[in-house]
Amino acid sequence: MTVKEVTVGIDIGGTNTVFGFIDERGDEIGGGHFPTYADEPPEQLIRRLADAIKSGFMSLEDDQCQLTGIGIGAPNANFHTGTVEHPPNFDWEVVNVVDLMKRHFDLPVVITNDANAAALGEMLYGGAGGMKDFIQITLGTGLGSGLVVDGRIVFGHDGFAGEMGHLTVDPKSDRRCGCGKYGCLETWASATGVARTARQLLEERSDDSLMRLTPRNELTSKGVFLAAEKGDALAREVFEITGSVLGMKLADAVMMLSPEAIFFFGGLARAGSLLLDPARRSMEANLLPIFRGKVRLEVSRLQDRNVAVLGAAALIQSTLRGNA
Amino acid sequence: MTVKEVTVGIDIGGTNTVFGFIDERGDEIGGGHFPTYADEPPEQLIRRLADAIKSGFMSLEDDQCQLTGIGIGAPNANFHTGTVEHPPNFDWEVVNVVDLMKRHFDLPVVITNDANAAALGEMLYGGAGGMKDFIQITLGTGLGSGLVVDGRIVFGHDGFAGEMGHLTVDPKSDRRCGCGKYGCLETWASATGVARTARQLLEERSDDSLMRLTPRNELTSKGVFLAAEKGDALAREVFEITGSVLGMKLADAVMMLSPEAIFFFGGLARAGSLLLDPARRSMEANLLPIFRGKVRLEVSRLQDRNVAVLGAAALIQSTLRGNA
Repeated sequence: MTVKEVTVGIDIGGTNTVFGFIDERGDEIGGGHFPTYADEPPEQLIRRLADAIKSGFMSLEDDQCQLTGIGIGAPNANFHTGTVEHPPNFDWEVVNVVDLMKRHFDLPVVITNDANAAALGEMLYGGAGGMKDFIQITLGTGLGSGLVVDGRIVFGHDGFAGEMGHLTVDPKSDRRCGCGKYGCLETWASATGVARTARQLLEERSDDSLMRLTPRNELTSKGVFLAAEKGDALAREVFEITGSVLGMKLADAVMMLSPEAIFFFGGLARAGSLLLDPARRSMEANLLPIFRGKVRLEVSRLQDRNVAVLGAAALIQSTLRGNA
Repeated sequence: MTVKEVTVGIDIGGTNTVFGFIDERGDEIGGGHFPTYADEPPEQLIRRLADAIKSGFMSLEDDQCQLTGIGIGAPNANFHTGTVEHPPNFDWEVVNVVDLMKRHFDLPVVITNDANAAALGEMLYGGAGGMKDFIQITLGTGLGSGLVVDGRIVFGHDGFAGEMGHLTVDPKSDRRCGCGKYGCLETWASATGVARTARQLLEERSDDSLMRLTPRNELTSKGVFLAAEKGDALAREVFEITGSVLGMKLADAVMMLSPEAIFFFGGLARAGSLLLDPARRSMEANLLPIFRGKVRLEVSRLQDRNVAVLGAAALIQSTLRGNA
């Protein structure tokens, strides 16, 4: 009998913490989840997590499994230092999650932010297999991004690279971002950005729209999407505007990094061609001729799986192989 | 006696072609230059170049030198394919310069564009020594850039990465760029961009200015610089505007790549703090808090040397060491 090497992928979120045991083929052979309690000391979370992993591992059916390493995705996590720094929605300052984890396991432990983990997941288990240069963008409440150059995640000198959500679209805009700046990309290209653009259009214009059936402050990106799918012109215009802004900044990223493809993950990515068609048109229009027609925009193939857990497992797997 | 390993660095420009013999310490121990004749077939240029290198090498004083490789910097050069593609100011289509060179030398030959070569020069011989993540920007007629991530030049999947000159500042601007787009970064942040901003200010405003002593269509960035140095308020405003636009796009680049420093080379970089102070202010204002106060903006330390030749030599040297 051969020993099956298994890694643990962990996604520490503000509400829930999820972990999975991932085998070498990327299959999840077990796992668990529980509330994070982000207002508690981090030591308690890590102890609960370690206990859950240990008992989960004991109960795996295949008793020839060997645990080889632990990968963690978490907000504001720093690959270089192992720390999570002032994560939004947590009562944490600077916490060395890797050190805390190593108190419980004599195994390699690595951490990165969720967006980088997603990029690694796409590379190992998704549509970016075999690609050396690509970008992964998560369109959720905000916009997260992971950049892959020559087969490796870009961490930058301080470990925080890849923050495309805060690229400046228009510094004179009145769209205030959660980061304190004005006119960041994610104030347009995110679930909240789409709702914002919709509310703005509904206020400025008097066109009929299915979106008017929903109270304005209850309108979500999903509501805009459902209206657009039914052919609502104003809702489609929301996606045109969103795609146009997104495409301009994608063009900037392409001219800097020349990726083979850009993958989109997250709730808003479900809008598919409604968003990606205008994004592609705008990107192409803003590219130097030498880059045109070369870059694929695609919805992630991991859209329906737990990408954060897969990506965290991918991180430790590629570290064990010496690639990260 | 020990053998001294020497590489050749070559800069193929639209007007002149320059080469130098560079030893392992980065010292130039010989070299030469001659007109390119960019309207002639490329085979002729490469033959003349090969002859000049061979006779130049014979005449080096130290006869214990051994030629180990050839590095070339050229416009629109592609590291992956060895080709130069439709270089501006040349009557060339797609030319495989590496293959042409190998007809004359049984040595490793590599090529890249001038901006990437400059970045490698900065890494091996300039201010970026020891840095794994930095950006090199050449402010000449246009704006060229070389990106270094984790100690390696970013080439991208097609070899053309690093074109920061064409990042979009404002697609609605009436500043048409040489590339055909409107509102590219280099229509502001370059020698021609500075002259353009100066002419625009002089037209729109009636303030006194030393710049008015020069006929408007003869005004150059150097003229603006000299006026600003004498305290001319309008000329200083030109640099404020230039720095402000540049800084906004630098912030985008920093949030993507998190470099340790950004180095500036080329004629306009001689403006020093006149340009870099407003660029720094604008960059900091457009950064996510987590990146603020971390990135150095510096004038290249290679400013007074032949950076293109040094950089091309750096390219072949790092290739021989397995780093590129």
